[in-house]
Amino acid sequence: MGRVVFIGAGPGAADLITVRGAQRLGAAQVVLFDALTDPALRALAPQAQWLDVGKRGYRDSTGQARINALLVEQARRPDVALVARLKGGDPSVFGRLEEELLALRAAGIDCEVVPGVTSAMAAAAATQRPLTRRGRGRNVSLSTAMTRAGTLRASRSADTEVFYMAGHALPALSQRLLDAGWPSGEAVSVVSAVGTPQERASAHRVDTLAEAAALHAGQPTIVIVGAGASALDAAEATDAADAIGAAEAPEAT
Amino acid sequence: MGRVVFIGAGPGAADLITVRGAQRLGAAQVVLFDALTDPALRALAPQAQWLDVGKRGYRDSTGQARINALLVEQARRPDVALVARLKGGDPSVFGRLEEELLALRAAGIDCEVVPGVTSAMAAAAATQRPLTRRGRGRNVSLSTAMTRAGTLRASRSADTEVFYMAGHALPALSQRLLDAGWPSGEAVSVVSAVGTPQERASAHRVDTLAEAAALHAGQPTIVIVGAGASALDAAEATDAADAIGAAEAPEAT
Repeated sequence: MGRVVFIGAGPGAADLITVRGAQRLGAAQVVLFDALTDPALRALAPQAQWLDVGKRGYRDSTGQARINALLVEQARRPDVALVARLKGGDPSVFGRLEEELLALRAAGIDCEVVPGVTSAMAAAAATQRPLTRRGRGRNVSLSTAMTRAGTLRASRSADTEVFYMAGHALPALSQRLLDAGWPSGEAVSVVSAVGTPQERASAHRVDTLAEAAALHAGQPTIVIVGAGASALDAAEATDAADAIGAAEAPEAT
Repeated sequence: MGRVVFIGAGPGAADLITVRGAQRLGAAQVVLFDALTDPALRALAPQAQWLDVGKRGYRDSTGQARINALLVEQARRPDVALVARLKGGDPSVFGRLEEELLALRAAGIDCEVVPGVTSAMAAAAATQRPLTRRGRGRNVSLSTAMTRAGTLRASRSADTEVFYMAGHALPALSQRLLDAGWPSGEAVSVVSAVGTPQERASAHRVDTLAEAAALHAGQPTIVIVGAGASALDAAEATDAADAIGAAEAPEAT
């Protein structure tokens, strides 16, 4: 009987997987993957059979049970020692890891989890807007804007608030953010298809977030609100330059 | 003049760096690194000069200015095309990326940020306790338990709350969590030196967190509280097994 390794594929680009994740892929006989995964990852496991569980028929709650059953079935194949379950981003965050781990444990199958880069950090890296800031950005909250039941939610529980899967509802999210107490002029950074050739990034305010809808339409979208969404301040750059004795004018950011 | 790439080294083990991070390291002439970094990472850049900025003299606020100045100085060397700034975990989360980016921009030096696996996700992977859970674990907050001024804080702003750098104050943190409104019986998962051979993990309740202090003493420690800290429920495993028609008894978790 084989074992199952859950691998965080990272946010998009194949080279944002971890070295360990790439090595485990190279050792697997079977890979279960979702639609979000970069096709270039296939080159890391040409020896494996690749099963697409991101397509229609796997997306509803019945679909999750079907994925669970498929994982168990593949791990039980006599010719399989390692099944890789590739998930976008990090498996422990919004990855439905719980359900799949439970099913495998119930079937007595050994599991390992290899963490990955989650989209929030990739979006912050791509835009060079750190999620934490000196003094005013001390914590970060990660949540989904849309519940599984399809309800749009927004909160103001941290200095930097990151919303996953927010692309379908940017105009409505703008209003929800105002309702949650965010100032209308607060910075919002929107990044979609992060880490892929289709990546797009734009900067807004809470009350003008609706204007981002057209630019990011149809792409998996991350919305960052608050301290971590703001551009690095050129005035602070001047301070930093002074502190190190540099004489250059600060770059516009 | 060279450019600077900030690289998230991941939480500890050298193979939890991203493939892109490893490739950039291999192309650098100079690497600035902190004490937290796994020594095995050096094998990824044997060609480079490695400068330790994690040692005493770089840790206070003056130290940060010294690191900024060193980055600028190294990037300006005529024989240097790429300076790698290696940071534990992910650079955009509690990594003081802001200060270093500002200093480099002020000096007109080109920067890139390669994201990494942050410790919270690595701790969740190591313990197989997903940070988000179906229905009851819908958001995750990342914060530092200790402010730079040395004040201990705790909050209850999300279903799963993750505290970085909490190791020095576990008994006091227990009380702060109660003060913040966490039920005394709420699950707490503590993981230290995650991803290293010294990794330790233990499970507690909010009111018994003090007992974790001895086990994790002297190690960089992550404290996870709430939905994402609880062990996966064997009863749910039974349900999952039923759902897929498996007949095995659930494993104790």
